Amino acid sequence: MNAPTIIEAPNTAAVIAALQARFGDRLSTSPAIREAHGRGEGLRDLAAPSAVVFAETTEDVAAVLALCHEARVPVIPFGTGTSLEGQLQALGGGISLDLGRMDKVLAINAPDMDCRVQAGVTREALNHAIRDQGLFFPLDPGANASLGGMAATRASGTNAVRYGTMREVTLGLTVVTPQGRIIRTGGRARKSSAGYDLTRLYIGSEGTLGVITELQLRLFGVPEVISAARVQFPDLASAVQTVMAVMACGIAVARIELLDALQMQACIAWSRLEGFAVAPTLFLEFHGSEAAVAEQIAMVEALAGEHGGSAFAFATTTEARSAMWRARHEAYHAARGLAPGKDSFTTDACVPISRLADCIAESHAEAQALGLVAPIVGHVGDGNFHMLVLFDPADPDERARADKLAASVSERAIRMGGTCTGEHGIGVHKLDALLLEHGAEAVAVMQAIKAALDPHGIMNPGKTVPSLPPLG
Amino acid sequence: MNAPTIIEAPNTAAVIAALQARFGDRLSTSPAIREAHGRGEGLRDLAAPSAVVFAETTEDVAAVLALCHEARVPVIPFGTGTSLEGQLQALGGGISLDLGRMDKVLAINAPDMDCRVQAGVTREALNHAIRDQGLFFPLDPGANASLGGMAATRASGTNAVRYGTMREVTLGLTVVTPQGRIIRTGGRARKSSAGYDLTRLYIGSEGTLGVITELQLRLFGVPEVISAARVQFPDLASAVQTVMAVMACGIAVARIELLDALQMQACIAWSRLEGFAVAPTLFLEFHGSEAAVAEQIAMVEALAGEHGGSAFAFATTTEARSAMWRARHEAYHAARGLAPGKDSFTTDACVPISRLADCIAESHAEAQALGLVAPIVGHVGDGNFHMLVLFDPADPDERARADKLAASVSERAIRMGGTCTGEHGIGVHKLDALLLEHGAEAVAVMQAIKAALDPHGIMNPGKTVPSLPPLG
Repeated sequence: MNAPTIIEAPNTAAVIAALQARFGDRLSTSPAIREAHGRGEGLRDLAAPSAVVFAETTEDVAAVLALCHEARVPVIPFGTGTSLEGQLQALGGGISLDLGRMDKVLAINAPDMDCRVQAGVTREALNHAIRDQGLFFPLDPGANASLGGMAATRASGTNAVRYGTMREVTLGLTVVTPQGRIIRTGGRARKSSAGYDLTRLYIGSEGTLGVITELQLRLFGVPEVISAARVQFPDLASAVQTVMAVMACGIAVARIELLDALQMQACIAWSRLEGFAVAPTLFLEFHGSEAAVAEQIAMVEALAGEHGGSAFAFATTTEARSAMWRARHEAYHAARGLAPGKDSFTTDACVPISRLADCIAESHAEAQALGLVAPIVGHVGDGNFHMLVLFDPADPDERARADKLAASVSERAIRMGGTCTGEHGIGVHKLDALLLEHGAEAVAVMQAIKAALDPHGIMNPGKTVPSLPPLG
Repeated sequence: MNAPTIIEAPNTAAVIAALQARFGDRLSTSPAIREAHGRGEGLRDLAAPSAVVFAETTEDVAAVLALCHEARVPVIPFGTGTSLEGQLQALGGGISLDLGRMDKVLAINAPDMDCRVQAGVTREALNHAIRDQGLFFPLDPGANASLGGMAATRASGTNAVRYGTMREVTLGLTVVTPQGRIIRTGGRARKSSAGYDLTRLYIGSEGTLGVITELQLRLFGVPEVISAARVQFPDLASAVQTVMAVMACGIAVARIELLDALQMQACIAWSRLEGFAVAPTLFLEFHGSEAAVAEQIAMVEALAGEHGGSAFAFATTTEARSAMWRARHEAYHAARGLAPGKDSFTTDACVPISRLADCIAESHAEAQALGLVAPIVGHVGDGNFHMLVLFDPADPDERARADKLAASVSERAIRMGGTCTGEHGIGVHKLDALLLEHGAEAVAVMQAIKAALDPHGIMNPGKTVPSLPPLG
């Protein structure tokens, strides 16, 4: 286990004592609980916080921040612990602020199709709460993440091609500033030109500017019909060209996911699939009226056919859809099954769709040249794809090759006009890539904002924005 | 004419001399040109800048800003001069930076459906440039505004209900900071989680944080079919309930515009319309495949019928659509025609759609109580509506009543969970409303960002964010 040496702030013990007085058994310094708060999903690297506070209200959060701001002790917000880029590592110790108990759906406004939730509500819990009103919250990053955490990392997932990312579906926030002040951003209007867009500034800031404690979110009507489809291709380029044609025709697919041949090989073995070849495959979902969905399926089938697609099939009942999508749903475990005992991490490049086939092909070739097993899954309607890079944690050379692949996938995406992260964030892993992507002058603007809003640097230090000399 | 006393910065004359040396006849101090840069569309209040510079490149902009930053002289970015909230007033004199000559479409990427333009390109010029590639840029705020100006005010318009606002369609920007540094924000990827969302921070900042010189914009495929429809209602509430039903059913209308009875009365007289009653009317537009559009029209007709709609009609050819929408297109001039010789300004409230009927009804009643003529047009799918408030500039009492109405429309929208501005911005007119809407603590965060990025306060001073004590 990699556990970096943590140098705690001098006032840490005093702050923990003061927090204990206020929070009692809602503060924990147990090693097991601290460790559970000091990494992310499937990550080996650990940097445990000095203590964990379980907040129940926005005022709890404000109290923690005011105290830590005064004492210059770091605070790391925590939702469900499913972040992937090291956002949770307590690099300088300090307080992990667990919002999991802030799990109340505060308001559901069916006529306006919006809701207000506490930050610890998970996307599945929200969908459970609104289902009987004919509404749903579409974003699906895979994990049953907290909505606060999803906003903090600007998450999205398979449905983003139709419904947008957290940036688009969030109307407003309640945020506690590093000083412990409570602000509300945005509102309930669908659009606004009133002042600086603080909502979008906090979305994607990964807990480095403040703590999101409530969210006002857009909801959507449950579609009349949901259908699924799958189609296979002789090569990756044909699959991606089909996606481009689908997007160019304005077909409002709800999901359009690519699995490469290696990932399909893994899925066929893991999920015991029948009727699939080991070939690049698109999985699609359609939402709409019966006529609209039927028209979309026919158009997609025709476009796929023009690009060499075969074995087109679609399904409409819930059971048949689930069966058809099983490969996609079990892709992560199937890929891990390619090399039992190995560790893995996930790349997150996102490029203009015209560069997607090249970006995937070059990355795939590089993985092979490096002797790495790295199957690919892509939210291809957005130009976003993930390589699950498998490596033996006991083999430093393989780990180094895996890291090299990850870095060059980021660089390749940036060179192609894209981004090093479509939906996972910067965390501690991609600080160099951020600089490469945006340049020193733009990063200096980010740093100036960080310095202005968090002058003592207590909020999730070492993440998201690299340290740079301040703006002159 | 209201011309406030302008106290220029001490170095203004020296800066103008230095700029003249660099820009020659691209700098003007002619009174006519200065006046044309010191107000906005249809606004009487004037605060002319000390000089106007016509920039042709991002480097020109950087040179102006570096000089003015050093000399502490204000800079006010200028596009087409169509802003409505006083954003262009040179309250402290200084340099109006006219970007109108930065009118090049730099790149059109048809496969990715995006483009890069200089900030002075207007939306109509962009659409002209991309039309033969089967693409269009949907946002339509009415005026043929520059795209840089539309980003700066977070503009939207009639198509936003389907295609989003400048917030959603902008992928990235080139911005010159107040210090004269050139940064690029965002990129060409459809989504990104890489660092703070500077793109969204500059969008809507009304030239107070820097100057937008280039934009990377999403484009859309020209729909296979465009149809228009109109339907009339016995009362406003029935019309709005129809809109709510349409939105709840997920019908992807491209436009859904409301004109109230007074506005329809004006339109019938001005545009010599036949076949319309003096009654609240919805005008709609549908984009999609032939089958999808036909289905949408049938659904909307049925929903309108359930809510008392009558005189439903639709049109598909370009000519028939134009004829049907003529009332909407000529609404402004028709409304002005209600009281020839009077001046007007426009309110811009946006509320959750469940409050829209109440907000309009209360505002309408208040206008009547105040003895004001104020017809209403609404982008009702977004909950946004405009009252065109007519007043006699020679009658201070009527002007005062008009201002009172404007202030209370903003307050009412905020009280109902909405915003004082859906798409026109804060400018100088709504600084009080901004404070009411977001609260002093959130405005203090905006002020801290302003102070961090523009420490000398040269960028469009007096706009968007009220002066407040800095964050402690």
